[in-house]
Amino acid sequence: MSYQVAVLAGDGIGPEVMAEARKVLREVEARFDLNIEYTQYDVGGIAIDNHGCPLPDATLKGCEAADAILFGSVGGPKWEKLPPNEQPERGALLPLRGHFELFCNLRPAKLHDGLEHMSPLRSDISARGFDVLCVRELTGGIYFGKPKGRQGEGDNEEAFDTMRYSRREISRIARIAFEAARGRRKKVTSVDKANVLACSVLWRQVVEEVAVDFPDVELEHIYIDNATMQLLRRPDEFDVMLCSNLFGDILSDEIAMLTGSMGLLSSASMNSTGFGLFEPAGGSAPDIAGKGIANPVAQILSAALMLRHSLKQEAAASAIERAVSKALNSGYLTGELLSSDKRSQAKSTAEMGDFIANAI
Amino acid sequence: MSYQVAVLAGDGIGPEVMAEARKVLREVEARFDLNIEYTQYDVGGIAIDNHGCPLPDATLKGCEAADAILFGSVGGPKWEKLPPNEQPERGALLPLRGHFELFCNLRPAKLHDGLEHMSPLRSDISARGFDVLCVRELTGGIYFGKPKGRQGEGDNEEAFDTMRYSRREISRIARIAFEAARGRRKKVTSVDKANVLACSVLWRQVVEEVAVDFPDVELEHIYIDNATMQLLRRPDEFDVMLCSNLFGDILSDEIAMLTGSMGLLSSASMNSTGFGLFEPAGGSAPDIAGKGIANPVAQILSAALMLRHSLKQEAAASAIERAVSKALNSGYLTGELLSSDKRSQAKSTAEMGDFIANAI
Ligand SMILES: CC(C)[C@H](C(=O)O)[C@@H](O)C(=O)O
Ligand SMILES: CC(C)[C@H](C(=O)O)[C@@H](O)C(=O)O
Repeated sequence: MSYQVAVLAGDGIGPEVMAEARKVLREVEARFDLNIEYTQYDVGGIAIDNHGCPLPDATLKGCEAADAILFGSVGGPKWEKLPPNEQPERGALLPLRGHFELFCNLRPAKLHDGLEHMSPLRSDISARGFDVLCVRELTGGIYFGKPKGRQGEGDNEEAFDTMRYSRREISRIARIAFEAARGRRKKVTSVDKANVLACSVLWRQVVEEVAVDFPDVELEHIYIDNATMQLLRRPDEFDVMLCSNLFGDILSDEIAMLTGSMGLLSSASMNSTGFGLFEPAGGSAPDIAGKGIANPVAQILSAALMLRHSLKQEAAASAIERAVSKALNSGYLTGELLSSDKRSQAKSTAEMGDFIANAI
Repeated sequence: MSYQVAVLAGDGIGPEVMAEARKVLREVEARFDLNIEYTQYDVGGIAIDNHGCPLPDATLKGCEAADAILFGSVGGPKWEKLPPNEQPERGALLPLRGHFELFCNLRPAKLHDGLEHMSPLRSDISARGFDVLCVRELTGGIYFGKPKGRQGEGDNEEAFDTMRYSRREISRIARIAFEAARGRRKKVTSVDKANVLACSVLWRQVVEEVAVDFPDVELEHIYIDNATMQLLRRPDEFDVMLCSNLFGDILSDEIAMLTGSMGLLSSASMNSTGFGLFEPAGGSAPDIAGKGIANPVAQILSAALMLRHSLKQEAAASAIERAVSKALNSGYLTGELLSSDKRSQAKSTAEMGDFIANAI
């Protein structure tokens, strides 16, 4: 099988962790007889520097010609003073999501065996572990709703944003959440603010309707404010969390932080054709960029998600995930996952990549 | 001095914790020579049962005639199946906030000395303690913005809400945050989503402008998704958090849960005349209602906030707070704050009220 992948490594640690993902991909290509062609494009801050905008035309065209986008991370202090619209993160990610209608964002987060101490949660809570899949709607809601803007003058000047959801948008993301739950612990928690938002009232109604087709999956509704709280007390009781764009942004980050190991988390953003963008959940971490200490696991797992969801190579995806588990279970870890007394055993970015590539 | 207070005890544990607040108020009235007249009104579920709606006219009129509202809590399983608009919480609280233009919501939350183990945070994080004041805008944003509704049919049916903020709305709440910070650790963290929302871009701009008048207060901006995360890792680094209505709803609940002792947290919702509604942060807790075990401290501290902010009786307010601290510091606690091996020392709702009243 032959595929085209657009590689958008971006800024900060992006390029160095991407190199390790490519190393691991090389191994699975050989082992599973895949032929993947990679083309690199600038995105984010480096694209601003080289081409004057965070998502140049050539990059967008390259993505259009590809079967999937393997994304690194974007942003850094150098570009923080730009107007919000032109900044690397928002200027690259939002247009990519909109352009390819990547409405389905999957953000899996689990507390890895042996890494419970990394969680900021109390030890008796983290000891119970957790494994949550956040299914976030990614092209609707208040991110893209029109009108959005400003009007008026002086003290009366005001800004406005529109949160907007159609039945179609809600039901397609709800279906994905229920299907995902079927392959997991069969529970969907739908997050909304139906006591305040008209969008949430429709959201709850459509989710209930979709649930009828999934009698084997339990459905519960929770308000966003309460979800934020319950995740702190009993994260183990959640399986799939179904969220609108804004609530998913907030909750998926909370859940990621609850694992305490953002360097292990990856995410998939897909459209209805299976095309997708795959990226680590953490940021560009400019403070550690170039030092060879960044954890490449999230980027490597993003490659696995790409193989599974866009290239439909489940065996290759699982092989990567098994190799990663092997590294983590053998205590083969980058520094940020080690307590200070064990920091001397920390592996470098490249060592992690080598170990995982060899374990394929 | 003579005052009128509208007492809206509501549902669940509301009436029983309100009784203790009244007990404590009786003591401070005697000691500080205040003359407070209380009138009780139905609100929430009990108002639905007795009058067919969660905020009857008589209740609203009673509140209009008063100097402040002392609020208990509303809601319970009995009314959960009603349409969102008619439910006790949203049907009583939102109209009260709107009617009296209670734009300023103060939600203080601190980890109490000796109660660090209640926090769901890892012990090394909770050991550092934290003390955060969430200043939430309460009558604007997506809660009240128009248009809000539904249109279209079939799969294209859609719902919409409008987030809307004017300079005037932002600057008046920002000013309160900066002033509060002056009396605390002199730091304001303004929470927004300026990389996505037009409202947040204006928010950030106006907050910057207000900050010019407070050169002694440090200002930082943080995205809501990042705020949710950083609170888990380093809650001690936050002082005043300034939030829009929706973000404040989410963050103040997260912070409340981080204390692990919601029964101790109260909140104040005020307008520009000093009129306000004072209520515990926790809910109506129907599961423990009527058992005499609910913690009355949040309700008692709400009375202190009322004395301070609406009745301008700082000495009386501080006296209540000192009495509460005395109870907590002597380990005089209701059951939910005790580890299971110490549960037998739990004080009842009435015992807590008695102790605090006596300590005035
Ligand atoms: C960069 C920003 C626009 C983006 C979002 O809010 O969706 C980010 O926070 C994310 O979650 O991917
Ligand atoms: C009941 C609900 C409308 C309310 C809100 O969202 O403001 C509540 O959650 C709160 O925080 O006081």
